[in-house]
Amino acid sequence: MSIINCLAAVCWGPRQPLAIEEIEVHPPRRGEVRIQVLYTGVCHTDAFYMSGEDPESQFPAILGHEGGGIVESVGEDVTSLQPGDHVIPLYIPECRNCKFCKSGKTNLCSIIRDTQGRGLMPDGTSRFYCKGQPVFHFMGTSTFSQYTVVAEISVAKVNQAADLGKVCLLGCGITTGYGAAMNTLKIEPGANVAIWGLGGVGLAAIMGAKEAGAARIIGIDMNPRKFSRAIEFGATECINPKDIERPIQQHLTSITDGGLDYTIECIGNVNTMRAALESCHKGWGKSCIIGVAGIGQEISTRPFQLVTGRVWCGSAFGGVKGRTMIPQYVDKYLSGQLKVDEFITHHFNLNEINQSFHVMEEGSCIRAVITMTTN
Amino acid sequence: MSIINCLAAVCWGPRQPLAIEEIEVHPPRRGEVRIQVLYTGVCHTDAFYMSGEDPESQFPAILGHEGGGIVESVGEDVTSLQPGDHVIPLYIPECRNCKFCKSGKTNLCSIIRDTQGRGLMPDGTSRFYCKGQPVFHFMGTSTFSQYTVVAEISVAKVNQAADLGKVCLLGCGITTGYGAAMNTLKIEPGANVAIWGLGGVGLAAIMGAKEAGAARIIGIDMNPRKFSRAIEFGATECINPKDIERPIQQHLTSITDGGLDYTIECIGNVNTMRAALESCHKGWGKSCIIGVAGIGQEISTRPFQLVTGRVWCGSAFGGVKGRTMIPQYVDKYLSGQLKVDEFITHHFNLNEINQSFHVMEEGSCIRAVITMTTN
Repeated sequence: MSIINCLAAVCWGPRQPLAIEEIEVHPPRRGEVRIQVLYTGVCHTDAFYMSGEDPESQFPAILGHEGGGIVESVGEDVTSLQPGDHVIPLYIPECRNCKFCKSGKTNLCSIIRDTQGRGLMPDGTSRFYCKGQPVFHFMGTSTFSQYTVVAEISVAKVNQAADLGKVCLLGCGITTGYGAAMNTLKIEPGANVAIWGLGGVGLAAIMGAKEAGAARIIGIDMNPRKFSRAIEFGATECINPKDIERPIQQHLTSITDGGLDYTIECIGNVNTMRAALESCHKGWGKSCIIGVAGIGQEISTRPFQLVTGRVWCGSAFGGVKGRTMIPQYVDKYLSGQLKVDEFITHHFNLNEINQSFHVMEEGSCIRAVITMTTN
Repeated sequence: MSIINCLAAVCWGPRQPLAIEEIEVHPPRRGEVRIQVLYTGVCHTDAFYMSGEDPESQFPAILGHEGGGIVESVGEDVTSLQPGDHVIPLYIPECRNCKFCKSGKTNLCSIIRDTQGRGLMPDGTSRFYCKGQPVFHFMGTSTFSQYTVVAEISVAKVNQAADLGKVCLLGCGITTGYGAAMNTLKIEPGANVAIWGLGGVGLAAIMGAKEAGAARIIGIDMNPRKFSRAIEFGATECINPKDIERPIQQHLTSITDGGLDYTIECIGNVNTMRAALESCHKGWGKSCIIGVAGIGQEISTRPFQLVTGRVWCGSAFGGVKGRTMIPQYVDKYLSGQLKVDEFITHHFNLNEINQSFHVMEEGSCIRAVITMTTN
């Protein structure tokens, strides 16, 4: 195996547009695979890293964590994958051996968390070089490159019948929202559910609540242009908090005879996180935080809210164990049970990747898919 | 049925000692029972009401909510109780008909919550009179009186073989701690558990964790004199946060390979509530708030704590449905499976009731039992 020269969108520093650069992608080492990335989504987490607000951001780096591609080569001791496999890289791995994986209680495999958090492969080095210098990996996936190297345990092998330009979105946003409803909250038939934030994650949460048989699904967003799509996805009604004179939690408990059975916060705002908890029904209402709040921000409530039976929890990647469950989700998509195409509002080529961040920021975009070619 | 004249400890106003007064206890109306109270415990909730810090305190009132007694007479339509039954009054009723009772998810029956909160019987009136004026009820129980009137749904009928001078304590503190471990958290064998506050509720939580088969039970208190009793109840080790130089959550996660499976806060301090949550293991640690915080105080944490899998919940009366489960707990006590006697450190007569608050405040008392006679 040799070094591959290809194009990647490199993030050289905070508050800079991504630069399309020719990079070197070194061969996969023991327990690693090299993937030709064909498509990638873009996500707020990428934008957050680029903003420089994350004190752990390191530069230069290759971002991206919603990819779809084909295994190009595998390193020593790789047994579960071979060249030609269609794959979705995973920002939460599934080693099946650590205490997290074995617990049966969480998807948060932590075996390579330390190096992944430092932008490196598990052996503490990078596979990316640009202009002679190493480039940091990102979230263990770095899908903004035509080729990437990831750990074998960070790869879901999926049905080749699925269009990678669609199912790449299962690598983050759709799975996060859908999984929170299905795996973390385990919403049951007849439940009342409210969902804050009607972007891609929120729509996916609505889809999960609908599949679970929720009787009432209330979508909440300050942007009423998002309401019609939310209804298409399964929301039974939508509310703009600006139209309500009293606090939203008071309004919701009054129109639901005491509160919601389940609430999901997909915005990342600590005030809506509180509202989502306090909109829950006394005795059993359960609120799940998915959104990522700004650095240093804290959630608060009166402890009485919990003593009287509300439960506050959270979810990362929808509680999904990626290698096991993403292939199942792809099959669900192929059988028509899971929407994916409906999330895609924009398409760009790699050289247009900065535009995808613009449409995301202005709110017109649910999900953009980048084709990793430049024409 | 006629008016009964008897003695009660009346709370005439905030920050005043209780006064032993002759009162009138009117007959039970429809759906009510009159109980001869033989014994009562005293609890911090009574002291809190007396302090006047609770803006909802009303005076004069007859406090007390950990009682044991015998049904003296029953009102119209009472079918589940008859004179002579041994009973424990319940501050959380169990009507078996409201949506809370029917949910199967909570013990927080709310059918008479409104009037109970206002210190009145369900028909909106009082059964207590003193010096010609009505006296407020408290928590639907008012066990600081030789006779009290409570709703039929607020009464657990228990095995007559049990000493009411002991099992009266199942009316609050013991059940609250034990039930949080057994019903709310459902601690499983082999789990690691930490419990903040080693008073009666904390000791009961330790007892529950031990019965559930917890492998490690860490008791935490600033008063090391409480440690030996905690060990007797089942704690495997005790920690005084004053002896630890780093934050207690950091210490606990380091000595437990990542954190506790379950934590229980029995103090009512919002800072220890936060510490208890943040001492939980990533991915699955669950923290239960039992303690009642001061008016207006709030709990806070970084939302990341929840997104990475910790769960924040609470419990009232240990999640126990009183009419169904208190009789079972009494039977457990009779068969030697449940400690009760071991909680009792002090005995007083009704006329000495103010002393029981003094020993509770100075910390030497786990539980005091008041015999409702004056000699």
